[in-house]
Order: sequence, then C-alpha cells, then structure tokens
Amino acid sequence: MSEPTADLLETFDNPFPQRSYVIDTVCPEFTSLCPMTGQPDFGELTITYIPDKLCFELKSLKMYLQQFRNHGAFYERVTNTILDDLVSATQPRWMKIEAAFTPRGGIRTTVIVEHGTRG
Amino acid sequence: MSEPTADLLETFDNPFPQRSYVIDTVCPEFTSLCPMTGQPDFGELTITYIPDKLCFELKSLKMYLQQFRNHGAFYERVTNTILDDLVSATQPRWMKIEAAFTPRGGIRTTVIVEHGTRG
Amino acid sequence: MSEPTADLLETFDNPFPQRSYVIDTVCPEFTSLCPMTGQPDFGELTITYIPDKLCFELKSLKMYLQQFRNHGAFYERVTNTILDDLVSATQPRWMKIEAAFTPRGGIRTTVIVEHGTRG
Amino acid sequence: MSEPTADLLETFDNPFPQRSYVIDTVCPEFTSLCPMTGQPDFGELTITYIPDKLCFELKSLKMYLQQFRNHGAFYERVTNTILDDLVSATQPRWMKIEAAFTPRGGIRTTVIVEHGTRG
Amino acid sequence: MSEPTADLLETFDNPFPQRSYVIDTVCPEFTSLCPMTGQPDFGELTITYIPDKLCFELKSLKMYLQQFRNHGAFYERVTNTILDDLVSATQPRWMKIEAAFTPRGGIRTTVIVEHGTRG
Amino acid sequence: MSEPTADLLETFDNPFPQRSYVIDTVCPEFTSLCPMTGQPDFGELTITYIPDKLCFELKSLKMYLQQFRNHGAFYERVTNTILDDLVSATQPRWMKIEAAFTPRGGIRTTVIVEHGTRG
Amino acid sequence: MSEPTADLLETFDNPFPQRSYVIDTVCPEFTSLCPMTGQPDFGELTITYIPDKLCFELKSLKMYLQQFRNHGAFYERVTNTILDDLVSATQPRWMKIEAAFTPRGGIRTTVIVEHGTRG
Amino acid sequence: MSEPTADLLETFDNPFPQRSYVIDTVCPEFTSLCPMTGQPDFGELTITYIPDKLCFELKSLKMYLQQFRNHGAFYERVTNTILDDLVSATQPRWMKIEAAFTPRGGIRTTVIVEHGTRG
Amino acid sequence: MSEPTADLLETFDNPFPQRSYVIDTVCPEFTSLCPMTGQPDFGELTITYIPDKLCFELKSLKMYLQQFRNHGAFYERVTNTILDDLVSATQPRWMKIEAAFTPRGGIRTTVIVEHGTRG
Amino acid sequence: MSEPTADLLETFDNPFPQRSYVIDTVCPEFTSLCPMTGQPDFGELTITYIPDKLCFELKSLKMYLQQFRNHGAFYERVTNTILDDLVSATQPRWMKIEAAFTPRGGIRTTVIVEHGTRG
Repeated sequence: MSEPTADLLETFDNPFPQRSYVIDTVCPEFTSLCPMTGQPDFGELTITYIPDKLCFELKSLKMYLQQFRNHGAFYERVTNTILDDLVSATQPRWMKIEAAFTPRGGIRTTVIVEHGTRG
Repeated sequence: MSEPTADLLETFDNPFPQRSYVIDTVCPEFTSLCPMTGQPDFGELTITYIPDKLCFELKSLKMYLQQFRNHGAFYERVTNTILDDLVSATQPRWMKIEAAFTPRGGIRTTVIVEHGTRG
Repeated sequence: MSEPTADLLETFDNPFPQRSYVIDTVCPEFTSLCPMTGQPDFGELTITYIPDKLCFELKSLKMYLQQFRNHGAFYERVTNTILDDLVSATQPRWMKIEAAFTPRGGIRTTVIVEHGTRG
Repeated sequence: MSEPTADLLETFDNPFPQRSYVIDTVCPEFTSLCPMTGQPDFGELTITYIPDKLCFELKSLKMYLQQFRNHGAFYERVTNTILDDLVSATQPRWMKIEAAFTPRGGIRTTVIVEHGTRG
Repeated sequence: MSEPTADLLETFDNPFPQRSYVIDTVCPEFTSLCPMTGQPDFGELTITYIPDKLCFELKSLKMYLQQFRNHGAFYERVTNTILDDLVSATQPRWMKIEAAFTPRGGIRTTVIVEHGTRG
Repeated sequence: MSEPTADLLETFDNPFPQRSYVIDTVCPEFTSLCPMTGQPDFGELTITYIPDKLCFELKSLKMYLQQFRNHGAFYERVTNTILDDLVSATQPRWMKIEAAFTPRGGIRTTVIVEHGTRG
Repeated sequence: MSEPTADLLETFDNPFPQRSYVIDTVCPEFTSLCPMTGQPDFGELTITYIPDKLCFELKSLKMYLQQFRNHGAFYERVTNTILDDLVSATQPRWMKIEAAFTPRGGIRTTVIVEHGTRG
Repeated sequence: MSEPTADLLETFDNPFPQRSYVIDTVCPEFTSLCPMTGQPDFGELTITYIPDKLCFELKSLKMYLQQFRNHGAFYERVTNTILDDLVSATQPRWMKIEAAFTPRGGIRTTVIVEHGTRG
Repeated sequence: MSEPTADLLETFDNPFPQRSYVIDTVCPEFTSLCPMTGQPDFGELTITYIPDKLCFELKSLKMYLQQFRNHGAFYERVTNTILDDLVSATQPRWMKIEAAFTPRGGIRTTVIVEHGTRG
Repeated sequence: MSEPTADLLETFDNPFPQRSYVIDTVCPEFTSLCPMTGQPDFGELTITYIPDKLCFELKSLKMYLQQFRNHGAFYERVTNTILDDLVSATQPRWMKIEAAFTPRGGIRTTVIVEHGTRG
C-alpha cells in the first residue's frame, strides 16, 4: 500500500485573520496498524490550533486520516507525522495534537505534540 | 432569507458597574445550516463576559440566535460574527465565545473566540 | 413583602485567624422570583472565602437566603447584593460567589462576583 | 470522653528524602459530632503533602482520625487541628487538607487549610 | 523471590528527537505486596514523560512491572524505584509518575514523583 | 394563604385516543413547606400516564404546582393530592407519580403513587 | 411550508427475514416548532423495531425527520405521526418510539408510542 | 452501652390508607461497629415500604438508627433487626431493606431483607 | 479481498457442561466498511451465550472479527452473519449478539439478534 | 504451587434462618493466571446468595480467593469451581456468581454461573 500523503489536505481562507482564535477538532475514529504485529491500533486525535491565513477543511482531514487505516507506524511517529503535515498545509500560529490510543496489553498511551507556543 | 441582524439584541443597565464580575450564558440549542450541503448544523454556545455599562437581555439573545436557524455559514465565520455583534451591542470589558458543534462524519469541532483580555 | 435584610446573618469567631484558609459553602436550593414575569427562578450558590476574624454561621445563612424566596430580582443584582451583605457581615480577606441559575427558554446563566483577591 | 491526641500518629522514615515528591491520601469515612446539636457530621478528608524526613503511617492515621468519632467540634476547628497535628508529627515540606462535609439542611461545606507553600 | 530488575526494560530510538513532546502511559493493573502483612496491593500507574533520545517499549514495560507482583514494598519506595529505573533506562528530558493505590482500611493513597521539570 | 386548587389545571384533547401510549413529564423544581418546621422542602416530580380522552397542558401544570410553594404538607399527603387532582382533571387510563424529595438530616425520601394498572 | 410527507422514507429488503431481531435507531437531533408560540422544540427520538420484509434506510429517515424542522406540532401528535409513517412504510412485526424533548419552563416531557407487541 | 431499642421509632397516620403506594427512604450515613474487631462499619440503608395504617416519622428514624453507632453487630443481624423493628412499629403491607456496606479488605457486601410480598 | 470465513473460529471443550451458565464477551473495537460509500463503520459487539459442548476461544474470535475490517456489509447483514457463524461453530444452548454502531449523520443504530431462547 | 482448596472457607450460623434474604458480596480484586501464557488475569467477582443454615465469613473468603493469585485456569473453569466450593461450604438456598474479567486483546468476558433458582 502507498504511503499516506499530505496532498489530500485541503484548506480554505481563514474568515477572521484579524483575530487570534482557537479551533478544536476531535477525530475519535483514527486507526492504523502496529508495525510489529500488523494488528490494528485505535485512537482519538484532538487537533487544536490558532489559524493564520488558512484553515483545514474537515472532509479532506477525514480523507487524509483514513490513509493511515492500513499503514503500519509506531504511535510516536504517526502523531508527529500528522502534526508536520497539518502545519505544512495550514502554517498555523500554533497547533497541538493529542493522540489517545486504546489499551494494548492493559496499557494505554497518549502522545502529545505541539508546534509553536499558544501565547 | 434575510441576513441575521444585531438589531434584535437588547440590553439593560449593569446593576453593579462598580464591580468587575463575570456572566456566563450557555445556549445549548444553536442551529444553522452548512453552506456547502444545506444540511443543518447543531451546536452549543457558551458566552462569558465582564459587563461594563450594559448587559444583554436573555430573551433578545435567544431571538437573535434563532435568526441563524435557516442561515448558511461556516463554523468559523458564524462564531466570529456573533462575537462581533455582542461586543458591539454591550461594549464589555471582556468577552469569550466557545461554540461546540456536534459531530459531522465522525469529527467534531469547537471554535473559541475572545475580545479583550480577562485581566 | 419586605426587602431581604442582612440582619439575619450571624457570625462566630474564626477559630484559627493565624492561618489563611478557605471555606467553600454550596447552597443548591436558592430560589427567587423573576421581576419581569413573577415566575420562580432556581439556582445554586457557591460561596468561597478566606475568613479574617469572623465566619458566617450556616443556619443563619440559610435563613438569610430564604428571604429571597418571594423576592423579585434580576440574576445580576441578587448575586451582587448577597456578596455585599456577606462581606459586610464577615469582613473576609477574600470572597467569591458563583450563582448558577437553571435554564430558562433553553438558556442557562451563571453570575460570578468576587471581593478582593485570593492572594 | 477524652480529647483526640496526636500521640496515636506514627511515622516512618521517608525512603527517598533526596527527592521532593507528593503523597495524597483520601479518608472518605471521617465522622465527628456537631458541638451544637450533638448530631453526627460526616466528611471526606484529602491530605496532600511533600514529606521531608518522615511519612505518616496509614493505619495510625486511621486510628488517629477515629478519635474524632465521638468528639464535638466545628468544621473549621477540626480541620485546622488535624493539620496542626499532622504537621507536628511529620514536619513536612508542605501539606494541605481539604475537608468536604456532607450536606446539612441542604447546604454543604468544604474547609481547605494549608501549611507552607507547594513550591 | 528475586528483586525486580531494570534489565527487562527495553527502549527504541525516539523517532522525533528534534521536537519536545509528551508521552503519557497508563498501567491500570499494577500489583505488589504489602511488606508488613504480605497482602496484595493494587494500583494504577500513570507515567508521563518528554523523551530525549530513547522511548521505553510498552511490552517490556509490562514485563518490568509484573516483577513487582510478588514483591513486598511500601507505596512510597516502589514508586520512587520505578521512576529511578525508567529514568535510568531512557534518560528523558522530564518524567512524572502518579501511582494511585486502591483503598486499604477505607483510606486511599496516591504517590506522585517527578524527575526534572516539564519546562 | 389559600389552599392549592385543581381549577388551574387545563387539558386538551388527546390527539391519538385510538392508541394507548405513555407520556412522561418531569418537574424538577417542585417546592413546598414542611408543616412541622415551616422550612422549605424541595423535590422532583415525575408524572407518567396513559391518556384516555384528555392530556394535561404543561403550562397549566406548572401554575398548578406553584401553588404548593408556600403551602405546608407532608410528603405523603402532597403526592397523593397531586395524583388525585391530575386523575380528576384528565381521567387517564393509568397514571403514576414519583416524588423524590431532597435530603433532610442526611435522609432522603421518594413517594410513589399510582392510579389504575399500566396493563 | 408544506406538510411533512412519508414519501421521503425509503426501505430496503430485510436481509434476514427468517429471524425475528431488533433494530434500535437513535436520532438525537430532532427539532420541530411549538404550534402555540412558534418557538423551536428539540428532542431525541429512539426508534426500536423488529423488521418483517423491509428495513428503513437511515439517510432517508434523516431526510424525513428534517421535514419537521419548520413544522408546528404538539409533542404527542408529532410522535404518533412519525410512528404511523414508519409503520406504514416498513410494516414491521413490532415498533416503538420514545421521543424525549428538552425542558421548557423547567419541565421536560417524553412521549412513548408502540405498534403491536414485542412478543 | 445499652442495646438499640425500637421505642425511639415514632409513627403518624397514613394520610391515604385507601391507596397502596410506595415510600422509599435512603439513609446514607448508617454506621455500627464490627463485633469482632471493634472497628467502625459504614453503610447506606434503603428502606422501601407500602404503608398500611401508619408511616414512620423521619426524625425518629434517624434517632433510632443512631443507636447503632456504638453497637457491635454482624451485617446480617443488624439488617434483619432493623427490618423487624420497623415492621413491628408500622405494620406495613410490604417492606424491604437493602443495606449496602462500604468495602472492608477490598470486599463489599449488601444485605437485602424483605417482609411480605410487594404484590 | 476474500470473504470473511468462519474457519478461523476455534473452540475448546466446555469445562462444566453439566451446568447451564452464561458467558458474556464484549468486543469494543469492531470495524467494517459501509457497502454504499466504502467508508469505515465502527461498533461494539456484545456476544452472550449459554455453551453446550463447546466454547469459542477468544483469540480466534478476535482474528475472525478482524476479517470484517476491510469488508463491506450493511449493519443488519453483518450482525446476522456473525451470529450464524458463531452458532455453527459452537452449537450453543442459546446465543445473543448486540451490535452497537457509532453515529453516522447524527443517527446511531444497534442491531440485536438472538438464537434460541435463554430459558 | 499447590491447588486452591476450599478448606480455607469458614462459615458462621445464619442469624435469621427463619427469613429468606439475600447477601451480595463484591470482590473487585480477584486475580489468577492465564493457563496458556502465564500472564496475570484480573477480574471482579460478585457473589449473591440466599443463605440457609450457614453464611460464609468474609475474611476467609478473601483468603480462599487469594489462593488463585498464582494459579492457572480458564475463566470458565475458575468461576464454576468457586461456585462449587462456596455451595459445598454453605449449602445455600440459591447462589449466583458473576465473574467480570478485565479486557485482554481488546475483548472482555464475564462468566455467570448459578446454583438453584432464586425463587
């Protein structure tokens, strides 16, 4: 299967660039594959950001995230990769992603990555 | 259908202007239309502010918000517009709006806008 | 009906004035009347303070608050009035009141007033 | 009945005095008597501290707290007294007690006392 | 029975060392023995850290923690020991462990230890 | 003050008398006075019924219940009286009232009365 | 505005008519208008049924329910009407609708209607 | 200390003996002593009954239950004893007591006793 | 992609066939594809049964369910198919499956299928 | 390690054999080993019974259950074994055990076994 690509992400012009404000988007149905076992992992992504000139479009975000469905990657890498792709597409003033994965072996993990400072 | 107008907003004199205090108003039944698909969107608005000379009147707020019922607008624009209208009507010392929209396509979004600083 | 009076409030000596500490009192059964419609309003008062020389006595607080049962007043005025009366009776180092009223017309309001700074 | 005494409190050596860390202990079954009416009061104590050389032993804490079972004291006094006794026994770098009492006459009260600053 | 050993902990290279980010791991099935009574204790460990060059591997963490299953140790010592072992294995920029133990005798205790500052 | 009267209750024609169906109405803001102490009691009424020819109108129900605001009556009597008045006004196929009162002296009481059988 | 019509409801063949089984569908975003005041009502419909030859299609159900958005009707009538339309479209072995409306004037109402017996 | 006595229980005439209805009373602050260890036990009693000629008075119930505060008895015996005393005092058509005790040694127990059948 | 096959299901001998007892298994991470849109559906399966001679093995159940991950099927068909496969593999005295799917378009659906009667 | 033995179970005389009543005991800290992998399993046992001549003693129950701590057994066998041992020791009029095990591989299982009928 091909690698996930940021090309699917679409944006639209921020309608109020004169004001710094926060957009918080929760995607509770994220799934990828464990690179060790090939077993599916499940998680909830919370993406919070202060847009500058661009906002990401929700339907394209959904399509972008579904690329990871049959893609193998460690929690830490996949979360950092998504942050890099979203930052690259929207150039936000600030962005944070919290990726909370469901338990494996009785242990559950959340990865929290941030670009810039909220200010 | 005509555009929503801030003219419906009514105010009354702040009974304790000598003290900076907070009023927090939650409107769980906000609804507008998606400008792309024409489908209804639902959300909960939380309006928090420190009044200066004027407070907004709750029944007029309700009438004002019902204007968006058959109005098409993106989440980001509608939230910023409501903040602008309420700031214009009441000239508060500080105001914040959190607009939490119900999920679409498994993804849910909250827009947070602020006027001034809480201090 | 007569106006609510602060005379009902009784106090006792703070047993540990040498230490700044916090007392948090929740009164979930506050009720007053809407001055516009005469309909009853319901709410929950949370009173938090750092006592100086005096603490308010709980039973007298209850009697004091019951005076508002058949009294008509806007949310903002009634909350500020109760803060003034309690500050006057106990002269606290700091006091805050959060008055959360039950929904009317699908909208719910909380008024938050403060005397001094918590420090 | 005799007064509660701090003599029942036992301590043990902090196994990691080289590190400042927090111990948080919750005692949901505290009970004492109202000094006015003789009626029992119930509450939950949360004791949080940074130990220095000594930690309190849990079983002795339980025995110490059970002394208040048939002891009459106002909320404010009993909470401050317990803080004084625990500070005296363990000489902590910092300690806080939150005592949340169950409702009486529809009103519930929490007393929060602190020794030193958390730093 | 032999002492728990940190040798079981395995690590892997942090895939994004160029970014300071947070990994939060919850282990709700920790169990050890009370050194006084030999009775089992149960708890939930929450390990939060900012990795530097290394991340701990989850399956090896699980194996490492299972060593405490028949090991007697006080709450305070066991929590500090686990922090020391994890810090030693991964050399993180910052790490915190919250160990919440289930109630004994109606009293429940949480131990919170930290290495470095979150910054 | 005058006795509460069932005259305030208004009804409208059941729009589907050909079908036996259930209407469940919850009134969380009921309040009356204790006949012993004169202190206010608070409670939540849940009225469930299968209408026959008539349904009660909600606004008139609210006005009817507000008559008990300054009326002294024991829990058991007030609940049975309301059932009798609603049965008399609507002649339902079946009706049940659950009246859950808030705690007094640490004890809370619910009175459950029923007219006919649900079938 | 035109009356809501059952023509929008689409069905598909029950894939397992040889087995009696239950389908339970929850629609939390139902809204209609109060016929007295013109104000919007909000509610959650739970539709439970045992299909015979036909199942209703979810997207067409959504379109059908959105017709009530600007339609004025009492709670009791709208719930019975929806049951009649769904029974007419799918001819189920059994069907029940619970319609829970949000509070108005501090009172909330649920209407429960049923076609046939669950057996 | 003397044995608990049913003499403290007071009753009043059932105001609606012509109707069989249910009274449900919850006492969350019951406490007695373990007869083996002398340690306090805590529990919540739920008393549900259909009165015949008499109802028990709540304040006297509270006084009656407080007699067990320093009384040693096994869970099973104390629950059955209270049922016998309340049945003897009120001669109800039906009565049930559920006594839910807080955990001891990680194990929690509820005793459920019943007089007559609910019918 | 190939069709899901029941061949992956493994069983083991019921260790207590002399007693009728219930096994209840919850699989919160079921996912399949919508046959109309190709979009992923998510759900939680609850499988409850009384075994006769055979029990299903949990790891093989997991492997069996993962076959639906990239398989397109309507809710109603997939639930009935899984019941048929599990009944065929284990020949239980009774079995029920509740499949609760996550919301789509603001509507959520649960399908409940049963084999035999619980008795 | 030796097999768990029912010899550890101790009983005491039912103090009210003249009345059929229910005792419900919850043991949330049960742990055994998976016979396949040697990994620990965790679960919560709920034991409900109507005693005849004998009740089981709680401390001995705890000791009895702790024997399974390092014992390997399938969920189904261990639950049936415990029921057999408790029935043998107390000869109850009726007994039920619900054993809810924590998730393994994202799947959680509850085993429900019963002796006699509740009647």
